[in-house]
Amino acid sequence: MTTENTHDAIVIGAGSGGLTVAVGLSTFGKSVALIEANLVGGDCTNVGCIPSKLLLHHSTTGALAGDVLSTVRQRRDDLRKHEEDEYGTTDNIDLRYGHARLVGDGAVTSLRADHVIISTGSSPRRLAVDGLPGDRYLTNDELFELTEAPAKMVIVGAGPIGMEMAVAFRRLGTEIVVLDAAPQILPLMLPDAAAVVARTTTAMGIKLMPGLVAHGFDVDTISLAVGPLGGPPTDAINDVDVVLVAVGRVPNSEGLGLEDLGIETDRGRIVIDGKGRTNVDGVWAVGDVSTEGATTHAANAWGRRVIKHIVAPLAPAGARPDHPAVTYTSPEAATIGDQPVEVPGDVRRISYDFSKADRAYTDGVEDGVIIVDIRRFSGKVIGATVVGPRAGELISIFSLGMKAGVRFHKWYGTVWPYPSYADALGAVVDEYMVAAMKSVPSDALRWARGQLRR
Amino acid sequence: MTTENTHDAIVIGAGSGGLTVAVGLSTFGKSVALIEANLVGGDCTNVGCIPSKLLLHHSTTGALAGDVLSTVRQRRDDLRKHEEDEYGTTDNIDLRYGHARLVGDGAVTSLRADHVIISTGSSPRRLAVDGLPGDRYLTNDELFELTEAPAKMVIVGAGPIGMEMAVAFRRLGTEIVVLDAAPQILPLMLPDAAAVVARTTTAMGIKLMPGLVAHGFDVDTISLAVGPLGGPPTDAINDVDVVLVAVGRVPNSEGLGLEDLGIETDRGRIVIDGKGRTNVDGVWAVGDVSTEGATTHAANAWGRRVIKHIVAPLAPAGARPDHPAVTYTSPEAATIGDQPVEVPGDVRRISYDFSKADRAYTDGVEDGVIIVDIRRFSGKVIGATVVGPRAGELISIFSLGMKAGVRFHKWYGTVWPYPSYADALGAVVDEYMVAAMKSVPSDALRWARGQLRR
Repeated sequence: MTTENTHDAIVIGAGSGGLTVAVGLSTFGKSVALIEANLVGGDCTNVGCIPSKLLLHHSTTGALAGDVLSTVRQRRDDLRKHEEDEYGTTDNIDLRYGHARLVGDGAVTSLRADHVIISTGSSPRRLAVDGLPGDRYLTNDELFELTEAPAKMVIVGAGPIGMEMAVAFRRLGTEIVVLDAAPQILPLMLPDAAAVVARTTTAMGIKLMPGLVAHGFDVDTISLAVGPLGGPPTDAINDVDVVLVAVGRVPNSEGLGLEDLGIETDRGRIVIDGKGRTNVDGVWAVGDVSTEGATTHAANAWGRRVIKHIVAPLAPAGARPDHPAVTYTSPEAATIGDQPVEVPGDVRRISYDFSKADRAYTDGVEDGVIIVDIRRFSGKVIGATVVGPRAGELISIFSLGMKAGVRFHKWYGTVWPYPSYADALGAVVDEYMVAAMKSVPSDALRWARGQLRR
Repeated sequence: MTTENTHDAIVIGAGSGGLTVAVGLSTFGKSVALIEANLVGGDCTNVGCIPSKLLLHHSTTGALAGDVLSTVRQRRDDLRKHEEDEYGTTDNIDLRYGHARLVGDGAVTSLRADHVIISTGSSPRRLAVDGLPGDRYLTNDELFELTEAPAKMVIVGAGPIGMEMAVAFRRLGTEIVVLDAAPQILPLMLPDAAAVVARTTTAMGIKLMPGLVAHGFDVDTISLAVGPLGGPPTDAINDVDVVLVAVGRVPNSEGLGLEDLGIETDRGRIVIDGKGRTNVDGVWAVGDVSTEGATTHAANAWGRRVIKHIVAPLAPAGARPDHPAVTYTSPEAATIGDQPVEVPGDVRRISYDFSKADRAYTDGVEDGVIIVDIRRFSGKVIGATVVGPRAGELISIFSLGMKAGVRFHKWYGTVWPYPSYADALGAVVDEYMVAAMKSVPSDALRWARGQLRR
């Protein structure tokens, strides 16, 4: 039985990825059913990037904590209403609220289309903490509903969310303890880079306890037992009002009927190829629910790929540009590409003390680092780390340079405005040029040997 | 009579350009006599970039004005002492204090070398203001010696120095009026860009009076008569404590013996070619005293050119990269390349309201603009303007992209971290792509016609 399509495409989930795809396809004249089970804007607008950045900004204003939290909610809700209005009235977009389930042959419940794009996002991983009552257990889903700053908050997980919220709530006056099973905070960053954030957050009065996990909560003493992973508790944190659990995300891939259609997943994430396609014809995935997710800009970038390949099916997938990642602590901590802890032999690493930059001197910035890994001889930049003021913009310089394939010796001669923070990159390039020139013969030999081995 | 060289090179002036050349040549094993008539570090360290950025930063701390000004001097002097110690003890650099005069045949007073590099910088243009007593007349040379914030300051000249100091002293509590003969502040910027700074500085309580010049000061009423250039006074500013004159720079090219050697100048600036050479063999010039000066990073960039061509005389001059310029007002205002007021027919201009960026929303930034001029069809970026937070770093993205020749359509696909301020560039590129795609046929035709005409 053939049933007619109700739309050209069905997008499940109106978060960053889904909205990108829906808006993009609609501008190409495609009719799109956009189905949202919860709130338009998804995690980013409602419980992620937007309220966290609002909170990081407003926590610096000196306003009372309750007022700050109220302002954050108000501004967040205003933005969501704006998005609801905008996308609810966009030509070709049919915004519907409810849960969707794929039932085969291009149909989602009662809708049908040639293309179904799954963009259902992710949810916080709800690590169990023995004995912790529900009203003291927070994730980012609940955090922004607080109406007052807690007196004392333990944050389980020293990743981007945990560290950003540590900074914001510390500014509001909350006593903060951060745990992480890993031996350092921001475990995905290079140790020297994470150490900068460790020092600056410690100087703010945040207590960092890396290498420790939560073992259990005692409601009578309102204390949290902590210890090494797999070992017995070794310490207790007293007077704990709330615990913020920020230990990663789980993809929202349940209940969509993926198994019925045989859509391949990897640890719950929908496996996609370089065009954003799943293994089932006509079914695509973008964002956190896919294997290429994790950030709003990733959802956006992959959403654009999906649009391109739906509109122009024969277009090649093209190269996958490196994705930057920024943690908006104070200072910001940003990375792009690979940052191996052990530097491979064919890679030259330049590590620059960002506090030596002239602008750091004038602005009283006493800590920071820029680390760039460059393939020897070819000069290809394989990764970079910036921890310091405006790191989000400085890492973007690498994002463009790496995307455009600008070899690092070709950065030489770029004029950086003095005394911007970008001027520090001039010093980094200088160090690289000096180091590279000294070893041109040995690098050439190494490169030639590599070529011969192939 | 042949006299032996005393050094390989003589550098006259130990400011940004001279220090760059001296240090660079010394690392290549050349012996350098470095002659400074006043203070090591030149204008940048002593009366320019460094104290102005120190003041812009420290004026935000809420400290008392007198303490802020004292801290600025202390930090500035610390840096100068550090530079004096460093360069005074660098191998191959012979730092001497005094005035230098070229007397022909590679000799400067009693010194002699194959290369003489003139890097004597510039001084503030001392526009006369009738009746204004010396103790009320300030330029950037005297400004940082103030021990208290004046109650009321008139700033003559709304260029970068004038506008930066307006912001800094306004923060310290000074009542500020800014005049400029031009019909807008920041006369070198596009009107839409300068208008952002006009609105934000006005909102700070700074009074802007473009289109007016100072006609004369009345010491009895301590008032300044102002009016249009060439016309009679039309208004008076009362209770003026000091007047800061910031109406451009004059090159320090007097007394060097340039005429005796026949060194070519243009309105006092020493004319240099693409390698930094004057018309006289062995005599070079860099920085503000040359025709390629005006900023510390220009002095630095041209200093590097001179080093290269002294060390490797046969190397080609190479392309001249575009130089960015940043005014560190709040927000920062930055430009690079050409920004014609009238957009030529073969140029596409994208103008983006920076306050529409998501980060601007979270951070409460309500004003800003990004303007990019792109050659039609080729996609070559010919200029850009950024007024908004972190403009100094955002313009640096253009600096690298333009230096590396990355066409603007090749920027598409770069992943900008969300929600950094750089994410706004993604929106700018999107706007460009949409506009460019719509007009590919007409642009191709235009391009072909241009080719045929050649």
